[in-house]
Amino acid sequence: MTRDIAQFAIGTSEDEISQQALAVMALSLMDWFAVAIAGKEQPATRIVSRIIQEEGGAAQSSILGSSTKYPARAAALVNGVSSHALDYDDTHFAYVGHPSTVIVPAVLALAEHHECTGQKFLDAALIGAESACLIGTWLGRRHYQAGFHQTATAGCLGSTLACARLLELDLEQTQHALGIASTRATGLKSQFGTMGKPYNAGVAAANAVESVLLAGYGFSSAGNALECEQGFSATHAGEEHQLGDLSERFRNNCLFESVQHKFHSCCHGIHASLEAFAQIMDDCRFSHEEIKRVSVSVNPRWMKVCDIKHPQTGLEAKFSYRFALAMLALGIDTAAPASFADEVCQSTELGEFADRVQVEPDAGHPDTATTVTIETHSGSIHNQYHDLENLPDLAIRTRKVRAKAESLIGETVVRQIWDSIQALPYTGIDQFMQDANCF
Amino acid sequence: MTRDIAQFAIGTSEDEISQQALAVMALSLMDWFAVAIAGKEQPATRIVSRIIQEEGGAAQSSILGSSTKYPARAAALVNGVSSHALDYDDTHFAYVGHPSTVIVPAVLALAEHHECTGQKFLDAALIGAESACLIGTWLGRRHYQAGFHQTATAGCLGSTLACARLLELDLEQTQHALGIASTRATGLKSQFGTMGKPYNAGVAAANAVESVLLAGYGFSSAGNALECEQGFSATHAGEEHQLGDLSERFRNNCLFESVQHKFHSCCHGIHASLEAFAQIMDDCRFSHEEIKRVSVSVNPRWMKVCDIKHPQTGLEAKFSYRFALAMLALGIDTAAPASFADEVCQSTELGEFADRVQVEPDAGHPDTATTVTIETHSGSIHNQYHDLENLPDLAIRTRKVRAKAESLIGETVVRQIWDSIQALPYTGIDQFMQDANCF
Repeated sequence: MTRDIAQFAIGTSEDEISQQALAVMALSLMDWFAVAIAGKEQPATRIVSRIIQEEGGAAQSSILGSSTKYPARAAALVNGVSSHALDYDDTHFAYVGHPSTVIVPAVLALAEHHECTGQKFLDAALIGAESACLIGTWLGRRHYQAGFHQTATAGCLGSTLACARLLELDLEQTQHALGIASTRATGLKSQFGTMGKPYNAGVAAANAVESVLLAGYGFSSAGNALECEQGFSATHAGEEHQLGDLSERFRNNCLFESVQHKFHSCCHGIHASLEAFAQIMDDCRFSHEEIKRVSVSVNPRWMKVCDIKHPQTGLEAKFSYRFALAMLALGIDTAAPASFADEVCQSTELGEFADRVQVEPDAGHPDTATTVTIETHSGSIHNQYHDLENLPDLAIRTRKVRAKAESLIGETVVRQIWDSIQALPYTGIDQFMQDANCF
Repeated sequence: MTRDIAQFAIGTSEDEISQQALAVMALSLMDWFAVAIAGKEQPATRIVSRIIQEEGGAAQSSILGSSTKYPARAAALVNGVSSHALDYDDTHFAYVGHPSTVIVPAVLALAEHHECTGQKFLDAALIGAESACLIGTWLGRRHYQAGFHQTATAGCLGSTLACARLLELDLEQTQHALGIASTRATGLKSQFGTMGKPYNAGVAAANAVESVLLAGYGFSSAGNALECEQGFSATHAGEEHQLGDLSERFRNNCLFESVQHKFHSCCHGIHASLEAFAQIMDDCRFSHEEIKRVSVSVNPRWMKVCDIKHPQTGLEAKFSYRFALAMLALGIDTAAPASFADEVCQSTELGEFADRVQVEPDAGHPDTATTVTIETHSGSIHNQYHDLENLPDLAIRTRKVRAKAESLIGETVVRQIWDSIQALPYTGIDQFMQDANCF
């Protein structure tokens, strides 16, 4: 696997990369900028920024929202924390993690430091994100269930591959870079709900940068680090799924194209139910008083993740089907991070609606799907199934990502960044960052 | 465990620290300086130094052998790699790892940055080393057998505690620092034999520095990170041995006092057999031609570690009972790192002697003990048992450490550093580093 994925990452030619895949990467880049900018004043980001400012160092790469540059590793750390701080960044269900928050900060920092072209940056980010999805798939769900934060583990390895491609490491160096990354890659789910979660993402990005810089200078490591005896997989509950020919797989079924963007500022496990619920409410125009009961069928794995019955904080409300649906029913904007404030948990009105919501585990539903059933006081019953995997076409996804971004960071800034992203294939990263990091 | 060990680390008063323990710490500090200075030109150290020089940053802490200062985290990284690069640093068998290479670089870097007193530095280093030994004991051997490099894992956590004590974090902050460290602490044994091994030590030290700085600024983490559900132990094959009252334990039986210094530049698993063999050779004054057969009984766990029958490189010879004993028999200095060169593996004379050495697994021997039996051509048989745990008194240990240090870095430099260490309780770290880092 180590050799195969290294070869895939550095050997895939530009011709093998589809315009559709690049367009999705561009969309994720817009989404990444929006959540990272919105996340830069979060406490976790502020504290990590403080450390980095105190360390200082060579002016290599930009931290979002700052005109001072820092070493690439440091910029990757801060921008990684910033883009995961709101838990609002993109998700890939096969990867079991969030690709862009670990891939983009690392590649962007190194691309800026090495004055790469925009196209080279985009290609590397896409191939790195695809690699992270492949490694996540290879490790499988057992790795996640064991307690490892796959965003950070598979993410660090994928991000390392993205950076290796960007800096044109050869195959041997790339394998060494993966070996170095493998002996650093970690991140625990037990840190969820604390600043440790976004920190995991930032650390993974920073480790990728350092691993690739070291390998580029001849640092050695065990070159078959993922699958060797007591290697990364063996020590981290990897399932080692067979993936077949990676290049062929990429050409026929680019995993990253089905990346999901969040349109509600809560746990991704709740999103399908919010979409299904919103669909019925849009179609039928019920007021919340008309609703007698809501039942939600979800894959059993979510019961331990986002079915907090009586949340006490805004953060807990993000992991509560009952409260998220109540917020939607009462017209509270679930897209706005600020909506998930501690006060919502004290609202009598929301609490009363939440008590009308029942969540049922049903193994017949995949992770990504939910059935919502609404029963009205008048006795009518309405069903809606929603599967996040049934992605709308790119135009609709683009419209939704832009609307989300505008609500987070304002229309003007979004237009500026969006235009810069569209110009990326024809410009250098230096120019891009001058245009996009100017708010 | 998280709370207990945090309380132990920050709450142990100066009165509870014995002079004997501090004297052993001082000895380890001398040993650490010697191996770190000798390791600073190793390829792993040079490459990591290059990265750190390119990053630059605030002049906080010294890298050994350089007059330029770097951020504390960066100095800890380089000095950690440097002190483990020769695999010649101290070992603790209960910890299953090398304490000083991870503890000293982190505490030294922060002590210099924060202009601490020498006594405070010494206390913190000792308590951190003791904490690393306690955490290593708590995790147990299964953690190591699963593939984790305990030097780096327990080391990072112990080093974090040392730094938390040094910077006077309170209990809550210290628990947060451990949580942050727990979601970073890793390091794989599958990297042994590559630059990844010393890198693990340096990374662990650097992570300790960053974890404590973050916690000091209010960064949050899961505060029971070691033992909680899907916490560090659960995800890393920890055995969670009961340790009882940590303070009482420390007062009655300081683990760190039985730290072992290496006097042969090879795997610690071979040392007891070299000592036993040397004892017979000293007593009986045999020439190597007189010896017909040597048999070595060792704990079975070493068979997979250091019984390479036909080493091909100097590095492999460091893991070969047969070759190490042959070198001793033929008068080659096993204390000198340069002796373990690739050429020794091609020596006919050494190969012939090696063929007379038989290694037998025997579960009756603890990890630290060996019985060597020599049979001469004249038919006499000589037995010697040696257990590394039967440490000689401090005066002899001191003499041996100084002699080793002198052979590594020369008498003048050793005298200078030794005098500086003796003066540590009466001086500041700034002065200490001016005196000790001047070669």
